Amino acid sequence: MKSKICDMLGIEFPLFAFSHCRDVVAAVSRAGGFGVLGATAFNPEQLEVELQWIDAHVDGKPYGVDVLIPEHLGVANESGLTSRKLKERIGPEYKAFVDKLLTEHGIDPGDSNVADRPPSDAPPPFWPEEAMKLLEVSFRHPIKLIVNALGKPPPEMIAMGRKYGVPVGALAGAKEHAVRLADAGCDVIVAQGGEAGGHCGEVSTLVLIPEVVRALKGRDIPVLAAGGIMTGSQMMACMAMGAAGAWTGSVWLATNESETSQVFREKMVEARSRDTVRAKTRTGKYSRQLKSGWTEAWNAPGAPEALPMPLMSLISEPAIRRIEKSAEGGNAAARPLVTYFVGQGVGLVEGVKSARQVVQEFKEEFADALGTVGEMMEE
Amino acid sequence: MKSKICDMLGIEFPLFAFSHCRDVVAAVSRAGGFGVLGATAFNPEQLEVELQWIDAHVDGKPYGVDVLIPEHLGVANESGLTSRKLKERIGPEYKAFVDKLLTEHGIDPGDSNVADRPPSDAPPPFWPEEAMKLLEVSFRHPIKLIVNALGKPPPEMIAMGRKYGVPVGALAGAKEHAVRLADAGCDVIVAQGGEAGGHCGEVSTLVLIPEVVRALKGRDIPVLAAGGIMTGSQMMACMAMGAAGAWTGSVWLATNESETSQVFREKMVEARSRDTVRAKTRTGKYSRQLKSGWTEAWNAPGAPEALPMPLMSLISEPAIRRIEKSAEGGNAAARPLVTYFVGQGVGLVEGVKSARQVVQEFKEEFADALGTVGEMMEE
Repeated sequence: MKSKICDMLGIEFPLFAFSHCRDVVAAVSRAGGFGVLGATAFNPEQLEVELQWIDAHVDGKPYGVDVLIPEHLGVANESGLTSRKLKERIGPEYKAFVDKLLTEHGIDPGDSNVADRPPSDAPPPFWPEEAMKLLEVSFRHPIKLIVNALGKPPPEMIAMGRKYGVPVGALAGAKEHAVRLADAGCDVIVAQGGEAGGHCGEVSTLVLIPEVVRALKGRDIPVLAAGGIMTGSQMMACMAMGAAGAWTGSVWLATNESETSQVFREKMVEARSRDTVRAKTRTGKYSRQLKSGWTEAWNAPGAPEALPMPLMSLISEPAIRRIEKSAEGGNAAARPLVTYFVGQGVGLVEGVKSARQVVQEFKEEFADALGTVGEMMEE
Repeated sequence: MKSKICDMLGIEFPLFAFSHCRDVVAAVSRAGGFGVLGATAFNPEQLEVELQWIDAHVDGKPYGVDVLIPEHLGVANESGLTSRKLKERIGPEYKAFVDKLLTEHGIDPGDSNVADRPPSDAPPPFWPEEAMKLLEVSFRHPIKLIVNALGKPPPEMIAMGRKYGVPVGALAGAKEHAVRLADAGCDVIVAQGGEAGGHCGEVSTLVLIPEVVRALKGRDIPVLAAGGIMTGSQMMACMAMGAAGAWTGSVWLATNESETSQVFREKMVEARSRDTVRAKTRTGKYSRQLKSGWTEAWNAPGAPEALPMPLMSLISEPAIRRIEKSAEGGNAAARPLVTYFVGQGVGLVEGVKSARQVVQEFKEEFADALGTVGEMMEE
């Protein structure tokens, strides 16, 4: 396929797969797409292991890395701050709320609002200094794209991209943000609609893509479309509006290779597109997740307010891991609480497949959509 | 263009223009699209006048009518109920809230929570008996499509469509609703994403279209895409996903012919796509509107709760007309309160044009998008 981004990255089919799972990243790149590893789930040592594995399994195909370096945190960037120190700033009502919720569902709450991963002596989640270490690890590998998931990449990240000859991308949820990212030196913009899983804005993909394409006209910066894209026909639709390709996330959660639990994958297959919610109560910033007993409890009257990033993750992540573990262990009462980041496209998930199969289907649906367009034009 | 809906309705370009303004309806149909008059803004006598005007100005081209017959109202359908009687059920805190808001902005609140249009002795807004009269008027004219804007058309409406040989359509904001409408006998489904202006659901257009197309596969029911569509490239994108055409609304509000005020049109040109809000405080059901001092006041802590349909309109409509009139009269303090139903696509509005010009641009952008797709495929 002829596309600027295909030339830029040496790929055949401009389908970008964001995943925390190395297997998905390698499988998608091998199948002609472009896998992007979400690095923020790892510490630098773990990331090194993951990238070595990808290098050994990607058959020389290009892949990328995504880091999450928030522009704004709710906690000043004090040097030496640890998760343990930070959690001491969280009011007791949060632990009480989580303990009650878990206990009611037959789950041992343990020390559920203590950050047990990363360990308590590790830096807080989404910590800028830690993110810079992830970048250093990433650039030691033959990555072809580095992306910041949340806001403007810091100047150091742009400079590292230039130094290593790696294009720098960033996600934008509004036209004004996309322009700001382009002005900051980003080489690729991922315009992500509000139907996306994970951190997202409010503007829908169908509106955002033409807005961003129009705003960046003449600037030679490819725009990838993100948010709700689960099929090749949606990818084709976005490219008809001027996107250079599709950036996808949720669709890979329903693959065999995915890091998600069996319970969550079952819930994905059952879920309708209306079964997601955009809320601050997972990370402290708005993110879209599967609606569950967990999200409903935090949205109910009397629930504690969301804390800012990164405090909120110190509460939510350990608890959600306990919920998942309990559900996987056969506790039926835990199942209704299971949730994860997922977009509205979850309503289009009909079963669990291999990552390779998903790429293949995208290609077929993309070709079918081309056929649909062709037929339309016949007189 | 080859499209099932073009054959069904005898049109050239499957661009559907929902408007309360007869000039827009006639201009779009004359230009090769399909104008649809929103009838619920009129009483039966007024509607007769509007349709006679359209018949005299549409050059024999096909057009349609849209009525709003809610499946569920917050008030039982008592015979003989009037707006006056109904408003007596509204607590005094609503009038006090509106009076204060208007007064603070230099607007005479008058009897602002009294329904002065329709007159107090008229049936309440969105009243089913009244809607049936609008249908009777509509079927006396050569309409080619009749659509229900909110939920399942009543069996009488389906029966009237069959009797007069006019296809019956309805809007759906979720896949499950679309299937229910098809099962009820609808001939055309308008799948409308949550980015749409006016009453809307939560699922984005990009997700909803492939969901509904998939769910209705093999049923020979054309699906029109709605929600956020302001350009021919978005229309093309939706059709690549299997839609038979595009149903549009907001884009016509920024035309010279539109019923909107000059102040509102200026605000549309200024607005970003994030400047809309989906709230119950205009009609009692979720609808998307331009964010303004009015919508913010109702969303602020301490504001009264939204009342169910049709009570809410008895409060909001007279007040909003006073706001608009005051702003149009030169009261700068009234301007920030001005609002109207509009979708996220408002961010794509760059100026006010004629309806004919908008159709022409849709056609050109549609052709350009085809060109984009063609180039993609060149090796």
